[in-house]
Amino acid sequence: MLPEEVLKTAAAEMLDYHGCGQSVMEMSHRSKEFDDIIKSAEALFRELMNIPDNYKVLFLQGGASTQFSAIPLNLMNGSGKADYVITGQWANKAAKEAARYGEVNVVASSKDKTFSYIPKLDKSTFSSDADYFYICMNNTIYGTKYHELPDTGNVPLVADVSSCFLSEPMDVTKFGVIYGGAQKNIAPAGLTVVIIREDLIGHARDITPVMLDYKTQADADSLYNTPPCYTIYICKLVLEWIKSLGGLEAMKVRNEAKAKVLYDFLDESQMFHGTVVKEDRSLMNVPFVTGSDELNAKFIKEATAAGFVNLKGHRTVGGMRASIYNAMPIEGVKALVEFMKKFEAENK
Amino acid sequence: MLPEEVLKTAAAEMLDYHGCGQSVMEMSHRSKEFDDIIKSAEALFRELMNIPDNYKVLFLQGGASTQFSAIPLNLMNGSGKADYVITGQWANKAAKEAARYGEVNVVASSKDKTFSYIPKLDKSTFSSDADYFYICMNNTIYGTKYHELPDTGNVPLVADVSSCFLSEPMDVTKFGVIYGGAQKNIAPAGLTVVIIREDLIGHARDITPVMLDYKTQADADSLYNTPPCYTIYICKLVLEWIKSLGGLEAMKVRNEAKAKVLYDFLDESQMFHGTVVKEDRSLMNVPFVTGSDELNAKFIKEATAAGFVNLKGHRTVGGMRASIYNAMPIEGVKALVEFMKKFEAENK
Repeated sequence: MLPEEVLKTAAAEMLDYHGCGQSVMEMSHRSKEFDDIIKSAEALFRELMNIPDNYKVLFLQGGASTQFSAIPLNLMNGSGKADYVITGQWANKAAKEAARYGEVNVVASSKDKTFSYIPKLDKSTFSSDADYFYICMNNTIYGTKYHELPDTGNVPLVADVSSCFLSEPMDVTKFGVIYGGAQKNIAPAGLTVVIIREDLIGHARDITPVMLDYKTQADADSLYNTPPCYTIYICKLVLEWIKSLGGLEAMKVRNEAKAKVLYDFLDESQMFHGTVVKEDRSLMNVPFVTGSDELNAKFIKEATAAGFVNLKGHRTVGGMRASIYNAMPIEGVKALVEFMKKFEAENK
Repeated sequence: MLPEEVLKTAAAEMLDYHGCGQSVMEMSHRSKEFDDIIKSAEALFRELMNIPDNYKVLFLQGGASTQFSAIPLNLMNGSGKADYVITGQWANKAAKEAARYGEVNVVASSKDKTFSYIPKLDKSTFSSDADYFYICMNNTIYGTKYHELPDTGNVPLVADVSSCFLSEPMDVTKFGVIYGGAQKNIAPAGLTVVIIREDLIGHARDITPVMLDYKTQADADSLYNTPPCYTIYICKLVLEWIKSLGGLEAMKVRNEAKAKVLYDFLDESQMFHGTVVKEDRSLMNVPFVTGSDELNAKFIKEATAAGFVNLKGHRTVGGMRASIYNAMPIEGVKALVEFMKKFEAENK
């Protein structure tokens, strides 16, 4: 979901961006106009996330799945080992891909309870000589989120933030790499943003494809080849929208208020229940069930007919999932809860 | 440049695609609506290019620069050798990247004359056991194009068609792989289309990142992860526009007529001269010079002021270059020639 204001601006500027006579879709990535767009997008990222000067902000392509390879190819360059916490399908895919390039130590997993919690981590299980420590910060499918970061000491912490990007403030200095696909919170699909500490760049393995080596785009300010210009433009509009609302502190207040409406109802309902332990609940993805597959199916059908789309849980979990990303207004969540109340009353 | 009709449709459908209440930017890539879009885009590619059933059409990310690695990683799996013809910067970059993974045999190069021609190829210099034979079909920077294909026998021919995609009919059966970035002729930047013969899929080297292995997306109909949905949607609109004009035969007639206007003038002008040998001229990119750096600079300045943008030649060549891709109407070329005539008269 994208803010309506952003879509309206994009539609209005489609044929002529700021009087330059061209659409952003047609601009040369070497033009002054696009240079302004990508520089503004980077500056807004730096401002909103308070990114220190010793971190690069890279605008890449290929999604998180491409980063699953890029991370080990660039970072597994010392002991050849990395620690992974398995909190769902994406962390698992990342670990599997890394294991093709080096030694993966699975520190912990919450697979035993269908990833319904974030494991309590025991530092004694961490590899002290790991090249990095990997987490998936917010687990889209299962609705969990790290509310406290593992203390990895000198081992760089790497986080996939695809589904919680810019949803609340983050202390960037605690991370070696923060990356995410744009399609949940910051732009349409087709853009991957990587925020990486400079000392981690430049040590890629010999076999690394040129476009997966962070140094390639870091040295070229993300203009080594043609970037996804239009998607970066929409990203810039979204960042401006976040800034206009008060930045990430304000997004956090907004997202907490939205999530509270839904979680409070789930906690009191006799029919609907959240599937995640309370302390690990995501602000972005809220999975829930009725306790009956038949009732779940009926609810999804009636909800869809009433205009609540994409409520079906991921095929690997079943049940329902409400995704309440940045762009979702609180009114949307309230309307959903009203609909759930009505459904509960009608199906007692 | 994109057709104005396409941009108008995109603007009109920005907030609500076909009454579904969502923008294409917001759609799940697993939704029925997006499934229709990507399937239509593939069907249109197959229809327009007459692609046989034993070829896959893949919608990927990362640009031609990513394919420079993917090609050797997937195809250099027999002798570990490949033949490359060096006709410009992009072919050269592709060959350099391939040389990191295997043995590259440079069959021929036109570097001796600043890539102003396509080398005549001597079959005795081809490696009979090469895993593939690589060409850059149209050379954006230098304005050359293969008007005849090398006869590579059983060795699969691989072609980068980024800057001539869908500009005229191609006999797909003559190729093992045809690929191109979308940003010249078929969509905004951020989409790479790969058309590959099925028997070439599934033999990637062990070290190949999952997203660079053609099998990953071939097995998943390009939906292994979230594709660049909005860019694929614009691509579909462009393909519909090409079809409405009469398909690739009609595009060829149109593009030849456009190019003729400009080349005819360059051939008769006393001031402006094309830089490419006649038989290798591109229909898409037309580089030209005045013979004086000072006059070149004056021309670019005055042309830009008159609204003819992006006429400056690539920084590695100098002079001027007119890019007259599919979406450029003949009126645009005629207006440019009128402007050149006027400039010539004023600066005799």
